[in-house]
Amino acid sequence: MISRTMIPYDLIRKKQQGEAHSPEEIRYLVDAFTEGNLPDYQMAAWLMAVHFRGMTIDERHELVRLMIESGRKLDFSHLDGYVADKHSTGGVGDKVSLILGPLVAACGVYVPMLSGRGLGHTGGTLDKLDAIPGFYTSLDLDAFQRIVAEVGVCIMGQTDDICPADKKMYALRDVTATVGSLPLICGSIMSKKIAEGIRGLVLDVKCGSGAFMGSVDEARTLAQALRETGEAFGVDTVTRITDMSQPLGKAAGVWCEVQESIEVLEGGGPPDLIALTKTLSADILRLAGQSEPEQAVEEALASGRAREKFEQMVTAQGGDLQALADPQLHAPNVTIPLIAPQEGYLAAVDTYECGMALITAGAGRLHQGEDIDPTAGFVLEVKIGDQVQAGDEIGRVFGNDEGKVQAAAAELLAALQWQDEQPSPPQLILE
Amino acid sequence: MISRTMIPYDLIRKKQQGEAHSPEEIRYLVDAFTEGNLPDYQMAAWLMAVHFRGMTIDERHELVRLMIESGRKLDFSHLDGYVADKHSTGGVGDKVSLILGPLVAACGVYVPMLSGRGLGHTGGTLDKLDAIPGFYTSLDLDAFQRIVAEVGVCIMGQTDDICPADKKMYALRDVTATVGSLPLICGSIMSKKIAEGIRGLVLDVKCGSGAFMGSVDEARTLAQALRETGEAFGVDTVTRITDMSQPLGKAAGVWCEVQESIEVLEGGGPPDLIALTKTLSADILRLAGQSEPEQAVEEALASGRAREKFEQMVTAQGGDLQALADPQLHAPNVTIPLIAPQEGYLAAVDTYECGMALITAGAGRLHQGEDIDPTAGFVLEVKIGDQVQAGDEIGRVFGNDEGKVQAAAAELLAALQWQDEQPSPPQLILE
Repeated sequence: MISRTMIPYDLIRKKQQGEAHSPEEIRYLVDAFTEGNLPDYQMAAWLMAVHFRGMTIDERHELVRLMIESGRKLDFSHLDGYVADKHSTGGVGDKVSLILGPLVAACGVYVPMLSGRGLGHTGGTLDKLDAIPGFYTSLDLDAFQRIVAEVGVCIMGQTDDICPADKKMYALRDVTATVGSLPLICGSIMSKKIAEGIRGLVLDVKCGSGAFMGSVDEARTLAQALRETGEAFGVDTVTRITDMSQPLGKAAGVWCEVQESIEVLEGGGPPDLIALTKTLSADILRLAGQSEPEQAVEEALASGRAREKFEQMVTAQGGDLQALADPQLHAPNVTIPLIAPQEGYLAAVDTYECGMALITAGAGRLHQGEDIDPTAGFVLEVKIGDQVQAGDEIGRVFGNDEGKVQAAAAELLAALQWQDEQPSPPQLILE
Repeated sequence: MISRTMIPYDLIRKKQQGEAHSPEEIRYLVDAFTEGNLPDYQMAAWLMAVHFRGMTIDERHELVRLMIESGRKLDFSHLDGYVADKHSTGGVGDKVSLILGPLVAACGVYVPMLSGRGLGHTGGTLDKLDAIPGFYTSLDLDAFQRIVAEVGVCIMGQTDDICPADKKMYALRDVTATVGSLPLICGSIMSKKIAEGIRGLVLDVKCGSGAFMGSVDEARTLAQALRETGEAFGVDTVTRITDMSQPLGKAAGVWCEVQESIEVLEGGGPPDLIALTKTLSADILRLAGQSEPEQAVEEALASGRAREKFEQMVTAQGGDLQALADPQLHAPNVTIPLIAPQEGYLAAVDTYECGMALITAGAGRLHQGEDIDPTAGFVLEVKIGDQVQAGDEIGRVFGNDEGKVQAAAAELLAALQWQDEQPSPPQLILE
């Protein structure tokens, strides 16, 4: 009966029963919700039904299309070079975007990167950039496009103009435990990336104790869905499945991750972070048709051009390079050493709990809108497979609130598992 | 970590993952929601997760306990007789409560019946009683208890004092397609019935095309859960599984169902309605320890005492017996005959669609609070297995709005399925 077809109740029930929606039904749900005509509680019920029942490819693509259409789609077709971006599904200590953006821009690729804030156990690129004095992460889209064209790279937050439907839906998913649903993850990531007007996209799908996808199979399923959607919308899409069974690099937090990123741009930094950044950067250059992508990446780092590009980006986005160089910037009031409680090998890390320890320290947030202490974070010097003696200093936790830092240190130690036999270290790049 | 245990997000996620809640967690969810400290959208997500994951017996009983504790529990222990009630899971044309209440009260059992309104395809006892001129269905609990004590039966709506937690949760389930979840049905029914302060309860679990439980297996599962909960709270509980593969009796609507109920109280009425009413009434008398329950039921009907008790109840609740006897009361403006479209046997009835046709006619509501046309309804003279000739008048649809009545007649005819061979009629009382 036509008079009843678009009753929200029936649409919730349809998905609850495992049926697929028509494009018109998906449009009704997205439009009505975005315009405030579908109450949050009905959308929440529908989202949870989607969590359990999934979506077909057609449903997913319709969702992505509508999210893009709900806002503005950028266009960089007038530029003389390849336009690409990179996205990670999130983890602890993952600061690759901060390095990769300037790095591939230094190699001639334009990078219009709309990024996110940290939430729950995962960190966010914007919070890190916000720790740079003067740096604007909420430019208008005209300024964003101008900086991309002039500098080659601009990293800022999603504006209200880009996929407002996704923005509203994500806020609801965030508080209803439906952030982890594959089709919704896929829709949320891809709509924003496609709306950037890019031609190529490298997706880093994290896998392990600190990732939304615990198993390689889950990560593979998500990677495939992301690729399908990218291809359906004409974006060359490469996916990597990479390890998040321990924090990436050594530093996790806000300011300490910016520092570690600059180390890598200057030719130093932890080996895992360097290796992953180079791989993903080369993937983008390969998409852009460059003949020797690995070599180009090495040269951009060795020559200092990547570091220069980072500084150009900071300056273009209002950042203060002199303040950035001040060793007293974001110096924490409290630093507590992490002491190995026993002799043995680091066997496993509950990386999710490491992320939660960051929240305890003040370096993350449980809810959108909460403030972050830029000085807070940790440095963990040991990797799975490393040997320690009881009493060794294996890292440090820091921040401005002594009680929080102490609690975080205890949580972090509890997230580390030790054993007598040497375990084999996890593979960094799984696929 | 203690500081995070009662974060609603974690509780939603726990149920989403299929884990059982602790009593404290159930208490937090129910209390916070009832007090307005848990937003609707989080409760909606949790309810949908419960739909998919279910609840353990312990969780269900805790839910019932909290719903009862959220309000007032009645006490009839000072009365000199057995106190019992009957509840049906809902269907089309089910007016048994209207007859059974006075009938068993005429046999010496006290019946404090808190009933509900019609919603979706199912009718509600209160809407029918509201069609009696002057009849109050929203008395305060003191008046309710007094009438039960003096007359033996009182039927009215759930007040704000009884299970307010359930009332609020039901309103949300109603718009989020989570009304059909077994543990939630169980919690909602049993909390209200136990709060009535009854000692015995007969539950009519409907099964078939017009019931929430489509299959006998589902009905059996629900019946068992209801019995378990009743016993856990010290209420003698009998369950029946009965047929709802076609409307019960002939009349469906508001006023026409009151008329058919009075017919039965006067010794007439359709055989299926009579049989089911007698069976359920005898079940209550058996619970009350009466030695010849079937005979007592027959005598109460034949002697006119059941009819008298109905009139006493109507009078006690403010109803006007003279107005009730007026043949022009709720006379519809429009009556359309239902004509058999072909020769053959009635093979099946989409009873859900019959209920939706009632909404179209004006005799039901899709959303809580919508008005109902008391004159609207239908009478269907044929039962599954009956033979008709093309052109036979098989019933009528009526109401005050010609367009609606015509649309409803078309929907009703479309809900009837005909065949050449005689099918066997469904069994009325399955278990």
